[in-house]
Amino acid sequence: MEMRPFGRLIRPLTARRRLLDSTRPVGRVELCRIEEAFDRVAARSVRALRPVPAFARATWDGYAVRSRDTADARPDRPKGFQVVGELYAESAPAARLGRAEAVAIATGAPLPPGADGVVIFEEVERLGDRVRLTHPVVPGDRIARPGDDIPRGAQLVAAGDLLTPVALGAVAAAGLPSVAVFARPIIEVIPNGNELVAPGGQLRPGAIYESNNAAIAAIVTAAGGTPRLSPPLPDDPERIERALRSAVRRSDLVLATGGSSVGERDHLPRILPRIGTLLFHGVAVRPGKPTLAARAGGRLIVGLPGHPTSCLANMLWLVLPVLRRLAHRPGPGWSEEWATLGADAIAPTPGFSTVVPLALRGGRAFSTFHGSSAITSLRGATAFAILPPGRRTVRAGQRLRICRLDPPLGAGPAGGTVKSAGR
Amino acid sequence: MEMRPFGRLIRPLTARRRLLDSTRPVGRVELCRIEEAFDRVAARSVRALRPVPAFARATWDGYAVRSRDTADARPDRPKGFQVVGELYAESAPAARLGRAEAVAIATGAPLPPGADGVVIFEEVERLGDRVRLTHPVVPGDRIARPGDDIPRGAQLVAAGDLLTPVALGAVAAAGLPSVAVFARPIIEVIPNGNELVAPGGQLRPGAIYESNNAAIAAIVTAAGGTPRLSPPLPDDPERIERALRSAVRRSDLVLATGGSSVGERDHLPRILPRIGTLLFHGVAVRPGKPTLAARAGGRLIVGLPGHPTSCLANMLWLVLPVLRRLAHRPGPGWSEEWATLGADAIAPTPGFSTVVPLALRGGRAFSTFHGSSAITSLRGATAFAILPPGRRTVRAGQRLRICRLDPPLGAGPAGGTVKSAGR
Repeated sequence: MEMRPFGRLIRPLTARRRLLDSTRPVGRVELCRIEEAFDRVAARSVRALRPVPAFARATWDGYAVRSRDTADARPDRPKGFQVVGELYAESAPAARLGRAEAVAIATGAPLPPGADGVVIFEEVERLGDRVRLTHPVVPGDRIARPGDDIPRGAQLVAAGDLLTPVALGAVAAAGLPSVAVFARPIIEVIPNGNELVAPGGQLRPGAIYESNNAAIAAIVTAAGGTPRLSPPLPDDPERIERALRSAVRRSDLVLATGGSSVGERDHLPRILPRIGTLLFHGVAVRPGKPTLAARAGGRLIVGLPGHPTSCLANMLWLVLPVLRRLAHRPGPGWSEEWATLGADAIAPTPGFSTVVPLALRGGRAFSTFHGSSAITSLRGATAFAILPPGRRTVRAGQRLRICRLDPPLGAGPAGGTVKSAGR
Repeated sequence: MEMRPFGRLIRPLTARRRLLDSTRPVGRVELCRIEEAFDRVAARSVRALRPVPAFARATWDGYAVRSRDTADARPDRPKGFQVVGELYAESAPAARLGRAEAVAIATGAPLPPGADGVVIFEEVERLGDRVRLTHPVVPGDRIARPGDDIPRGAQLVAAGDLLTPVALGAVAAAGLPSVAVFARPIIEVIPNGNELVAPGGQLRPGAIYESNNAAIAAIVTAAGGTPRLSPPLPDDPERIERALRSAVRRSDLVLATGGSSVGERDHLPRILPRIGTLLFHGVAVRPGKPTLAARAGGRLIVGLPGHPTSCLANMLWLVLPVLRRLAHRPGPGWSEEWATLGADAIAPTPGFSTVVPLALRGGRAFSTFHGSSAITSLRGATAFAILPPGRRTVRAGQRLRICRLDPPLGAGPAGGTVKSAGR
């Protein structure tokens, strides 16, 4: 059993910087119907080609009048108006309003020319085809003028905006049925290892179920990407190389899991330099040291350890910011803040940065870690800390700098229950 | 133009309580492949049918030994072991390890019977087919025992859990390719109004584009539901009634927009009591007073005002909690906290509760409201406040209780830019 020891390990933040420096947001653009565009990213700015509303309209049910005719209306000297018609929301433009004339008007109906205010039904007295006003109407009362909501030419959406309910409503109000969005980045995931069997298959002796695909697919989806998952490949360097070469041509990022260390059957460290330029192999971080990356044809291939916790920890602190940049999402996927360790001291590994998955409860942080081969080591973690090399043991009650995931990924927004699976 | 005035207005929190009391989470269950199950809600608990790992395995590359044979190994008196084989991750079970025997073993490989620890390559001296240990191996060192990650029978997911990356990884590790999830609630949305034209269509004089559908679809999607959108219907009571009757049979919630007030062409208040039991008509809230709801065949029909801001404000404080309950999501869709008003006093409407959409910047809240007919009145709002009737004007620097939307809906998690469209 051969080993080719790691060379000099790269610092984790340097590794991340190298990946981000090689990452450009996806440039492909597609049209998306507005009713399906929530949480997509606008590829171009959208301007209103016409004002909204396009015409002066009533914003209440009532009587449209010329405000200047109402100036002398007073409770003790009501002013009479002749009701000359009715206007509903769909009505075509009416005749010009004459002096001391009023039109019954429904919310949303176009104001008759000449009218510049609406008095509501409750505030007038109606007698036959006449109404009496007891107060003046201020010009602009209970109407919307053209462009009041959206002026002609106003920018409704800027390129790079996340499309929100209100932004999509504004685009609809301006009459556009679809919007140009950036394509979701396609993230191809290729697990390798003779021992891996896809869930649902029959386990041979010594085999285990491949579990990183499902977790990675979820993280990719949360970051706005589209996962494309390969079934597990055997430890066959030619097959792995073929798969990686195809993947890097048709996707925006390739994630290979397993085979990333220095053992005899860890093929990625020999394959990646043949496909592209190796950026690093071996990161000074625990868990997750056996990680490597290469740049090939303007795209990245990242090789992640097969151990679920090592793999998923690296997915968060290392790969998530890359996913988000590809998908035009702002920020790395977390916000930094201070927290107090709630229980169970954390002993960093000397000489390494230490990634600690954290659950947050009642303003305190609790490590969820219990071994890098255990998928349950990240159960309920909605944050993590990266303790620098040389950091001393962090004890309960001490402060540490944490990265709070946003969206939380490890639990629901309001803290969906996550049951411990023992330990 | 006829008006049938509102009766006694219902208080907004009472209206919401009535809707929630009539809402049961969707009971339909469907199987979902684990790689597509992110953010779905588990319908049943999932337990591990077998332990993970199913067999004792090495968690590092090294030599598997019987720890008791190493007890007397010391730097000054190394203990020699015979290397009797090599085990890779896919290897079938090996022969029982004899005294002072070692097996080269790769990460993930099954331990040979008798072995209970692994010493890593870097810590031994190899000479031909022998290795020399200078330190004892502690039982359990660098191995995982059966069930260490997930014990047999452990609960991986509880019914009602949001499926996270780690939960899905655990389900995969236990060998399950899919998981039973609750169906997404189907929310049918029916706009009505003669003046409405679907975006992309030709505007007649006096017509406007229907814009609530797009915004509602986004809110429904964010809450875990599936929107089903109707094109705008004309103000034809028979057609509207037919559409509502069909919708209530095939969906989990029906939202009708427009025609909800007391005008002659506001048909919903006459139609809803024919289809089901009217729960209320008219809410003591601004904006959004012309709102009604009925219960029909165990489902709700909510009639919302057509004015975009009134409609969307009600979608948030009134309908969002209903959507989330239908979709098994915890909480109403926001968390309450105190904030300081940043600028521009807010003058509540006397006798009404006042819903104020708020943008949050630098720890301060700013009203985004400028008229209930303006879709842009909710631009950038990621929170809202409901000021009770009788509340005095809130001035800049004063504190108010706010509901912070989670997810924010109005802007990206890290505050995606939202450009003002004038005003």
